[in-house]
Amino acid sequence: MSFASATAVGHVLGDVYQGAVEPGWDILGATNGGYLMALSARAMAQVAERPNPVTITAHFLNPAGPGPVTIDTNLLKTGKRFATVQARLNDPQHSLVALQGTFGDLQPSSALKRFEAGPPELPPPEECVGVEPADTFPPPIFAKIEVRLHPDDVPLLSDSPRQPRIRGWFRLRNGEPIDTFAVLLAVDGFPPAIFNTDQPPAWTPTVELTAHVRAVPVRDGWLACAFTTRFITGGFLEEDGEVWDATGRLIAQSRQLALVPRRLRK
Amino acid sequence: MSFASATAVGHVLGDVYQGAVEPGWDILGATNGGYLMALSARAMAQVAERPNPVTITAHFLNPAGPGPVTIDTNLLKTGKRFATVQARLNDPQHSLVALQGTFGDLQPSSALKRFEAGPPELPPPEECVGVEPADTFPPPIFAKIEVRLHPDDVPLLSDSPRQPRIRGWFRLRNGEPIDTFAVLLAVDGFPPAIFNTDQPPAWTPTVELTAHVRAVPVRDGWLACAFTTRFITGGFLEEDGEVWDATGRLIAQSRQLALVPRRLRK
Repeated sequence: MSFASATAVGHVLGDVYQGAVEPGWDILGATNGGYLMALSARAMAQVAERPNPVTITAHFLNPAGPGPVTIDTNLLKTGKRFATVQARLNDPQHSLVALQGTFGDLQPSSALKRFEAGPPELPPPEECVGVEPADTFPPPIFAKIEVRLHPDDVPLLSDSPRQPRIRGWFRLRNGEPIDTFAVLLAVDGFPPAIFNTDQPPAWTPTVELTAHVRAVPVRDGWLACAFTTRFITGGFLEEDGEVWDATGRLIAQSRQLALVPRRLRK
Repeated sequence: MSFASATAVGHVLGDVYQGAVEPGWDILGATNGGYLMALSARAMAQVAERPNPVTITAHFLNPAGPGPVTIDTNLLKTGKRFATVQARLNDPQHSLVALQGTFGDLQPSSALKRFEAGPPELPPPEECVGVEPADTFPPPIFAKIEVRLHPDDVPLLSDSPRQPRIRGWFRLRNGEPIDTFAVLLAVDGFPPAIFNTDQPPAWTPTVELTAHVRAVPVRDGWLACAFTTRFITGGFLEEDGEVWDATGRLIAQSRQLALVPRRLRK
């Protein structure tokens, strides 16, 4: 099943939409946060009557397994360029994700541009390390997304000094084109940057993830992505992401706050 | 009036709290976003029954002037350590700010720590440049907060090459102690980093601001703050902030998405 089908939503009544968490988008049983954000964002974009997420924040409340879901939306403001929506993704028992986002129509712009940095330096995809799905690890979601890691950022392959950084290429499997909702998947689609250290924690549950989408990516080709963690303190870590498209344009920035597992914190 | 009094809220009924946007916290007539976030967060923390914002996101819907406000809250989940709340700050006519946040009890932690960077290098406060309020510019809010800028980051004072970075010290006036709500003010209390460039836009309205609070700052002393903008593209810019306390601990990170004014974008 394509990403587009696996995140499709339908209008039910009033502000309520429905969809399904499809199987196969999980990591060790918990459905990927970027997938849940993309699914919810499709309903939010419909109620916003705008095609693209511009900035969207998700707080993850409960782990999600496959099955039917509803998205309760609340359109807070419609302006000339943007509309802002609050939402909740629910299964029949629980609220799974709380979301808040601003939607708009991202257009190529001749606007003022200034860049203090460029895309990550990556060898071509064929010289990077493909993450291939297995029954447990790497998880089955890598049958849905295609991720190729910079060889320097794969601990077992490289003698480079370890630092909490993961760079690599991302695309959907089977040549499915990338839209701004797939970008929400890309920002949560890589192994945590903290895995690329000498003492990686086993599991870093995400509390909150915010993505800013700056531009619509070209439909075809790989996204160049880079993720870094700078501060582990107070029981938390942040992970900052950048996504660039095949033409070298900045597509998105992301930041998430994750928990350092308790057993590793002392 | 102290910051604590100017952001005090009272319970009305059910999930609704009340307070007031006090005069003097504005920049050219629009009340500061960090102040509005702090005011709302006090109500959210009450309904969460947790003392500290851990991660909070605000979308700014309409400019706010002085006057009575209500905060409509919705407690989404209470867990062992955290509680998550959606909220809206409203004046009698409009929704002003939409918020979503996770609250907890931030404790000094002997946890795993790893830092890839440290506090900004700042001369002592007495060698920095104080921002003193005027009737128009600098705006009157600088009578409420005390900001001292790194001399290298003040365009008219320094011959250093300009870059979109602002570093400096922050505290409340009159020796008022700093709590985690005042930290929300600090992350929006400096001139935009983009002002420190050769062609600064006059005004960059904030679409969305997210702050992660990692620790409770020591009550007394200055906060060391640094703000940078790396990417201006698509009509947007981001501004990333870091806040450190007087003992050198990381207190908060922030990121906002702001609009580059239209007249400057072509």
